Amino acid sequence: MDPTVVKSLLKPQGGKIVLLVMDGLGGLPVNGRTELETARTPHLDTLAAEGICGLHQPIGTGITPGSGPSHLALFGYDPIQYEVGRGVLSALGVGFELEANDIAARGNFCTVDQNGVVTDRRAGRISTAKNEQLCKLLNQGQFAPFQFFAQPEKEHRFVLVLRGEGLSDAIADTDPQETGLAPLAPKPLNDTARDTAELFSKYIRAARDILRRQSPANMILLRGFARRPQWPSFMERYGLRAAAIAGYPMYRGLGRLLGMEILEAEADLEAEWKTLETHWAGLDFFYLHVKGTDSAGEDGDFARKVGVIEAVDALIPRILQLNPAVVVVTGDHSTPAVLKAHSWHAVPVVVWSPVCRPDRVKEFGERACMNGCLGGQFPAVELMPLALANAERLKKFGA
Amino acid sequence: MDPTVVKSLLKPQGGKIVLLVMDGLGGLPVNGRTELETARTPHLDTLAAEGICGLHQPIGTGITPGSGPSHLALFGYDPIQYEVGRGVLSALGVGFELEANDIAARGNFCTVDQNGVVTDRRAGRISTAKNEQLCKLLNQGQFAPFQFFAQPEKEHRFVLVLRGEGLSDAIADTDPQETGLAPLAPKPLNDTARDTAELFSKYIRAARDILRRQSPANMILLRGFARRPQWPSFMERYGLRAAAIAGYPMYRGLGRLLGMEILEAEADLEAEWKTLETHWAGLDFFYLHVKGTDSAGEDGDFARKVGVIEAVDALIPRILQLNPAVVVVTGDHSTPAVLKAHSWHAVPVVVWSPVCRPDRVKEFGERACMNGCLGGQFPAVELMPLALANAERLKKFGA
Repeated sequence: MDPTVVKSLLKPQGGKIVLLVMDGLGGLPVNGRTELETARTPHLDTLAAEGICGLHQPIGTGITPGSGPSHLALFGYDPIQYEVGRGVLSALGVGFELEANDIAARGNFCTVDQNGVVTDRRAGRISTAKNEQLCKLLNQGQFAPFQFFAQPEKEHRFVLVLRGEGLSDAIADTDPQETGLAPLAPKPLNDTARDTAELFSKYIRAARDILRRQSPANMILLRGFARRPQWPSFMERYGLRAAAIAGYPMYRGLGRLLGMEILEAEADLEAEWKTLETHWAGLDFFYLHVKGTDSAGEDGDFARKVGVIEAVDALIPRILQLNPAVVVVTGDHSTPAVLKAHSWHAVPVVVWSPVCRPDRVKEFGERACMNGCLGGQFPAVELMPLALANAERLKKFGA
Repeated sequence: MDPTVVKSLLKPQGGKIVLLVMDGLGGLPVNGRTELETARTPHLDTLAAEGICGLHQPIGTGITPGSGPSHLALFGYDPIQYEVGRGVLSALGVGFELEANDIAARGNFCTVDQNGVVTDRRAGRISTAKNEQLCKLLNQGQFAPFQFFAQPEKEHRFVLVLRGEGLSDAIADTDPQETGLAPLAPKPLNDTARDTAELFSKYIRAARDILRRQSPANMILLRGFARRPQWPSFMERYGLRAAAIAGYPMYRGLGRLLGMEILEAEADLEAEWKTLETHWAGLDFFYLHVKGTDSAGEDGDFARKVGVIEAVDALIPRILQLNPAVVVVTGDHSTPAVLKAHSWHAVPVVVWSPVCRPDRVKEFGERACMNGCLGGQFPAVELMPLALANAERLKKFGA
């Protein structure tokens, strides 16, 4: 549904909505059953029996989503249109508080030979500890009135943020994407980016000098230069006072991009649920993120993923005790343990509400949801209008 | 399907189509069954068993449609694109024969205090009889060569139509939408609307003088200024000689907007069916409208809605006896008795034709239709191409 139409129909108030995202929820069968089908989930099954079910497509048929785009789709922001630059996603991932004019880039520590030619784009995947040490060295450089911040991610990956006035993100990647070539210059992609490009050039020269005696990480590569996008917030778009409850920085960052209030919680279920209960009164929409399903899937640990799903199931009654108008339980994408990676498979979803029209699905699983009233190919971006309707937050269209 | 593609494929002839719309047909369960699931409907169940079923979305996910847009969707006119102004819908509703250049507005009788400030936007919901009397008074004003027509709706609502040459509908609402403010001026929204705005100003001043000694309805508020849209007719779009059989003025008006022939019938089933039988020979497409399902739903009368559905079911054989090529039975939207209002829930639909490929649905109900071949989210605007195909009115696309 066209977001401008939805916006034009918003009522000033309505019921509360919980969007519970089990990251990477969708799976593939082992011995005939997926992770979700294997898990004992009496409470999710009750939601399915009383609610409406389906499988959603985060981006589109056959597309394996990254976590950024798949979450944007769940939030009703078309991920093809609402593109987040790689640098910004990385900055969100490390919990860096990006300001509106900051330019963020994804960095790699790499190895170059005496001629400056890249011999290893990942510097032998140095340890995260080494990475942290190198970032500290880089952060000693002075570029006043500008500031550079190098923030370690994992292994050879880091985030570089440039802060100051009059900057542009129209800068070409310096990563040549293969060995045997020298790092590229951070070329300006238009005239207004010239000064910014010169600043990054200067930074890269300084970095080369600082890292010269290091081994194997003696140089840096940068890509995905981007500025934090200015998108309509949840309040502007849906009239919702929204909050994100997520133990991991990247998901808090996504919430922050959409103007959600970030409610602090450790990355464990009990802490997240406690936060939900504490903040229930003052807000309309709660995005509750569970990471464990995805991590287990990425690790290829089918049994652990089953365990996380069962642990979440046991906490469903605590959500219902809060008396929400709508509960949506789903994943942002599939991460089947047998693939050890994100995948393109559609994702089970249940929308529970006292005013929905229950379909005939009786259990929450991939094959069961397929026959629900949302079907097997429901566009994820349609979930928010559906949730708003069930929260009785939308007026009639036309007379 | 793109209407221009459909149009390019039209055959010069084909079978007859009946579109039977039970207004507000879709429901919500009470004791586990919806109105339609509760009703005993042997003939509709046979149509379902022999035909193809699904649930349609009139506008889109989560959107509660008004009757105007939802009917346009059934007729294959995208209701987001084909917008009808509020004034025009109201004029259709009272059966006013709008001419192409008329400007129609929705009116409220209201109460103003001695300073001209609105104290009640609905004038205490005066009786319809009082409304009729006040409209007569208003219609005594003279504005030659222009004409104003005030036509009563229910209670405090009326329709005001301005007829003449060179008019514009780019006029701002005069309804301040809250009490404590004076009525706004009917401001022109562009330069060409100045003269029209001046005419409405003059009319409003005259109305104030006429109503001055009335109480509580001593002033008027106007909104939704609009001209009757000029849309492609059913004949232009589908090559169909189409007719509307509807007991209520608003639905006849919608048919008129699309160039349908309006077949007079009282607002009762027997009269409507008789009209269908009488006019069967000379036409290709019959839109048959049943209001009782919606009225019962709006009244929260579950049992009465069940009764109307059963009464319609009993009349299905008389449609089949006419030997139509296609019968579509559906609603324009849902009006669950438990909600006493239009709702966003998808609407059961069956498309019956001797050349359809029957799915496995054996009964006509919301949950049964969900698993039909049209699925649970079928876009209503796709029904007309499907009906045309089943009436063997569309040629092959490409060679």
